[in-house]
Amino acid sequence: MARNNDTWILTAQCPSQLGTVDVVTGFLKQQRCYITEQHSFDDKLAKQFFIRTEFQPQASDFNILDFQEVFTARAAEFGMTFNLSEKGYRMPVVIMVSKTDHCLNDLLYRYRAGKLSIEIKAVVSNHPDLEPLVRWHDLPYYHFPITKETKAQQEAQVLQVIEETGAELVILARYMQVLSSEMAHTLSGRAINIHHSLLPGFKGAKPYHQAYQKGVKLVGATAHYINDDLDEGPIITQKVEVVSHANYPDDLVDLGRDIERQTLAHAISCHVERRIFLYGQKTIVFSR
Amino acid sequence: MARNNDTWILTAQCPSQLGTVDVVTGFLKQQRCYITEQHSFDDKLAKQFFIRTEFQPQASDFNILDFQEVFTARAAEFGMTFNLSEKGYRMPVVIMVSKTDHCLNDLLYRYRAGKLSIEIKAVVSNHPDLEPLVRWHDLPYYHFPITKETKAQQEAQVLQVIEETGAELVILARYMQVLSSEMAHTLSGRAINIHHSLLPGFKGAKPYHQAYQKGVKLVGATAHYINDDLDEGPIITQKVEVVSHANYPDDLVDLGRDIERQTLAHAISCHVERRIFLYGQKTIVFSR
Amino acid sequence: MARNNDTWILTAQCPSQLGTVDVVTGFLKQQRCYITEQHSFDDKLAKQFFIRTEFQPQASDFNILDFQEVFTARAAEFGMTFNLSEKGYRMPVVIMVSKTDHCLNDLLYRYRAGKLSIEIKAVVSNHPDLEPLVRWHDLPYYHFPITKETKAQQEAQVLQVIEETGAELVILARYMQVLSSEMAHTLSGRAINIHHSLLPGFKGAKPYHQAYQKGVKLVGATAHYINDDLDEGPIITQKVEVVSHANYPDDLVDLGRDIERQTLAHAISCHVERRIFLYGQKTIVFSR
Amino acid sequence: MARNNDTWILTAQCPSQLGTVDVVTGFLKQQRCYITEQHSFDDKLAKQFFIRTEFQPQASDFNILDFQEVFTARAAEFGMTFNLSEKGYRMPVVIMVSKTDHCLNDLLYRYRAGKLSIEIKAVVSNHPDLEPLVRWHDLPYYHFPITKETKAQQEAQVLQVIEETGAELVILARYMQVLSSEMAHTLSGRAINIHHSLLPGFKGAKPYHQAYQKGVKLVGATAHYINDDLDEGPIITQKVEVVSHANYPDDLVDLGRDIERQTLAHAISCHVERRIFLYGQKTIVFSR
Repeated sequence: MARNNDTWILTAQCPSQLGTVDVVTGFLKQQRCYITEQHSFDDKLAKQFFIRTEFQPQASDFNILDFQEVFTARAAEFGMTFNLSEKGYRMPVVIMVSKTDHCLNDLLYRYRAGKLSIEIKAVVSNHPDLEPLVRWHDLPYYHFPITKETKAQQEAQVLQVIEETGAELVILARYMQVLSSEMAHTLSGRAINIHHSLLPGFKGAKPYHQAYQKGVKLVGATAHYINDDLDEGPIITQKVEVVSHANYPDDLVDLGRDIERQTLAHAISCHVERRIFLYGQKTIVFSR
Repeated sequence: MARNNDTWILTAQCPSQLGTVDVVTGFLKQQRCYITEQHSFDDKLAKQFFIRTEFQPQASDFNILDFQEVFTARAAEFGMTFNLSEKGYRMPVVIMVSKTDHCLNDLLYRYRAGKLSIEIKAVVSNHPDLEPLVRWHDLPYYHFPITKETKAQQEAQVLQVIEETGAELVILARYMQVLSSEMAHTLSGRAINIHHSLLPGFKGAKPYHQAYQKGVKLVGATAHYINDDLDEGPIITQKVEVVSHANYPDDLVDLGRDIERQTLAHAISCHVERRIFLYGQKTIVFSR
Repeated sequence: MARNNDTWILTAQCPSQLGTVDVVTGFLKQQRCYITEQHSFDDKLAKQFFIRTEFQPQASDFNILDFQEVFTARAAEFGMTFNLSEKGYRMPVVIMVSKTDHCLNDLLYRYRAGKLSIEIKAVVSNHPDLEPLVRWHDLPYYHFPITKETKAQQEAQVLQVIEETGAELVILARYMQVLSSEMAHTLSGRAINIHHSLLPGFKGAKPYHQAYQKGVKLVGATAHYINDDLDEGPIITQKVEVVSHANYPDDLVDLGRDIERQTLAHAISCHVERRIFLYGQKTIVFSR
Repeated sequence: MARNNDTWILTAQCPSQLGTVDVVTGFLKQQRCYITEQHSFDDKLAKQFFIRTEFQPQASDFNILDFQEVFTARAAEFGMTFNLSEKGYRMPVVIMVSKTDHCLNDLLYRYRAGKLSIEIKAVVSNHPDLEPLVRWHDLPYYHFPITKETKAQQEAQVLQVIEETGAELVILARYMQVLSSEMAHTLSGRAINIHHSLLPGFKGAKPYHQAYQKGVKLVGATAHYINDDLDEGPIITQKVEVVSHANYPDDLVDLGRDIERQTLAHAISCHVERRIFLYGQKTIVFSR
């Protein structure tokens, strides 16, 4: 396990106190690990500390399991929770879609170009439309139709795919169904949705039409973790585009496509590189 | 009145119908007026037409009153309302402030640099703090304190200043009082407010603190006409700034200053150059 | 030809003079054509006038050929050149690529989603790599390898494809070969290139690496018409992205992909909707 | 010196090696200093490490001189250079201007609003025009006219003011004279200039006019450290604004004012908060 150029990512958080940085970096020094990238943030209002470190072990006999065991004890003294993962790990994901394909197409492109560190295990949809696109990428496509009566059953099917594939992240790439509270709760912290407005403005259905009625001069997109309160999960990233009176609702929909797909891809990239910390209803995001 | 290089601005609107552009441009041709800038917009949903034209009369005996009289008849056939004003006209304005000075300072700077086509007739405040800044610019400053009991009386004082100075536009440059419905109604269409959020998100008090609590990744400012529904008037222009988890409420307030003052100045500039049309609860803005 | 809801686009330009707008709009009124969108610009320095009008004929016996014949005479009086095309016309194009696929993938997506009013007649490349992607879209792919010795011959092959397919626009979607002066001249005004820098900064090869060396804090992309002076053709549109010291050249390349594809798609969209006028070394672009 | 809530800023750089973060953070832990903000960057190409830490001493008997002495020894082992300064320190500055006042007015506003941690010691100009504005702020104004013949003498006068006032930073807020190589060299690393283009595009005189001639669709501003190669010093920050064919050179100048003053103020803010590291011809900037 001590190949040269292995890079590990350590993320951790704990209550603010003296020595929070040192508990990580002092240990890395002792373990002869070279830090290649590091971000930390001490939230002075919430009194909570967050750190993300990329490091390369220098010792020829480095062993990540030993490292983890020793660090567990050290972290416990600070009430610190942490995660260790190898850089470049391709996180298994399931993508959920309906009929709209601009986000899916974008994710598939980035995936096959090697620009997202994910392994797409399956694409699940309540419609059959996007199957050819997915099949061309040699990926499994599950069509689980949904009606008011079959919602519970359909969600069970989806969850089964998620579990059987070992997906660690679920991506709602313009999935046009509201998840049940149960499902939202089950996927809490590991499902990212793209909402086509600048939340908290224009929640719910047809946000571009709402934006048009209001006469706003900017439209936006928001990537957020889902929770059981619709369109209210912790925000990860947001983007905007300038619009004018000359843009009808259909134009806003068209304009929105570019910002939606970029916003979603950026959020996924941050998640799989473990750049995001969830804390309460908010996120800490250590962008590069 | 027929000096060379005089430029006039004609703005007009009417229901959509055949010949809406021609009713203006054909007439300008007949009157030997050279069009230097023109924008038009036909709202296909509202079925309403808007046009703004800058023109230079070429005839040595051009007379704007004659022009106006003849055009009035022509416009009537199309149910067209219109306005004529000379380009470079310095619109008389009254500025309302409280204690916060970033927008006022910005407006005063642009004013003395000749970058806003306004004539500041007075600055009115419910606090005495900003008097020295205004006095240095040789402008009148009225301090009208306000309490719950004296609100009606204070608003009467303000309205008196507006009337006596002949102000055509009232600028609420971070005036931290809610106008009464009566006053808002009186000033409808001729008072511009800067709200320090991206409306319709975060209406009301302390929007940056609301934004912090929500954990948004963008903050914004909105310039809008006031109406009698607080923070709900027609939007003129909006700007945003990227923020992160590391920005506390005070940081957002600081970051917001730059976008607020730019947003407000841009809206005023559009208003005084007659680039804005009000229609229902929305605006048409012909930016350059 | 007088179906309801037919929309035509008239673009025209002529030297600045009295009546330039009226020559178009007065005629449209006479011909009972309803103007749905119009932009005009009078360049006061170059003394040149530009106008673009979308209109819907109202007469049941409207005939575009008659319209064109009559307007030709009228335009001649003003020294006006013009073009008439039907809105929604799918312009035949040929796309040129090398190995890099992010722009091509984006164009193919927009094409199959019906978001670009083009008809892709062929994709031409000096490499075989992108054939599967193109074939999945049921489009012809021509692989014409190029060496210093065969450049003239290869360009002749490309031109033959362009001519035989009737392509009106050639899109260089990250085609990594410099066109010969002859070919650039032949395609003048009907070939759009995407350059991965904010021209005029960083012309030539490896612009992101140049940008990294220089330590810029923004990178950009420029879509421009090609002419026989490399990376010096008239600029159509430009976009930027914020970068930092932490972005190595490879990161800039990655970041650039998103802005390149958007910039190119926007330029093509403006071209096929006839929103761009070429004048000297510059463009007039009437965006919506 | 051990008041509660004192915050210190430690900045340091050294060649990349094992333990670079720990050398700082381990020491801070030993010294019972609580880290409130920290950024580090390891430049893998230049093999150079940079760190900036804000910390609050917790010990009642903390002494910064002792701290500095002990850390000096520790840093020496790593070939590390460092700087210690108290947060909130108001850096003494001299501002150089000519006739253009938008940047000066902006800096004076931020200064009196307490939004820039500087102490303006003097404003120096080669013209008398801006004296009233400076005097209203109760600040010294030096008018040193310049001609080709008196340039050396004038620069000596300016340098004398800089030295006598103890200015640690010189701000060229649209100072329209090229500094001599000697003066540029003398001020190397402690003079920030605002150039009104997106460098490296449009160096030298009248960049907005150059930009207009080129027909660019974006204009920008660049804040950079001066060095003895005109407009080639290390870039600190850059901003852009979208423009169109309808913007004449004078319009670009007007539009540029807002981005220039923001860009300059941001760069100064980063400098005085010691967020910038100079390395070779580039900067590392740890923005909040």
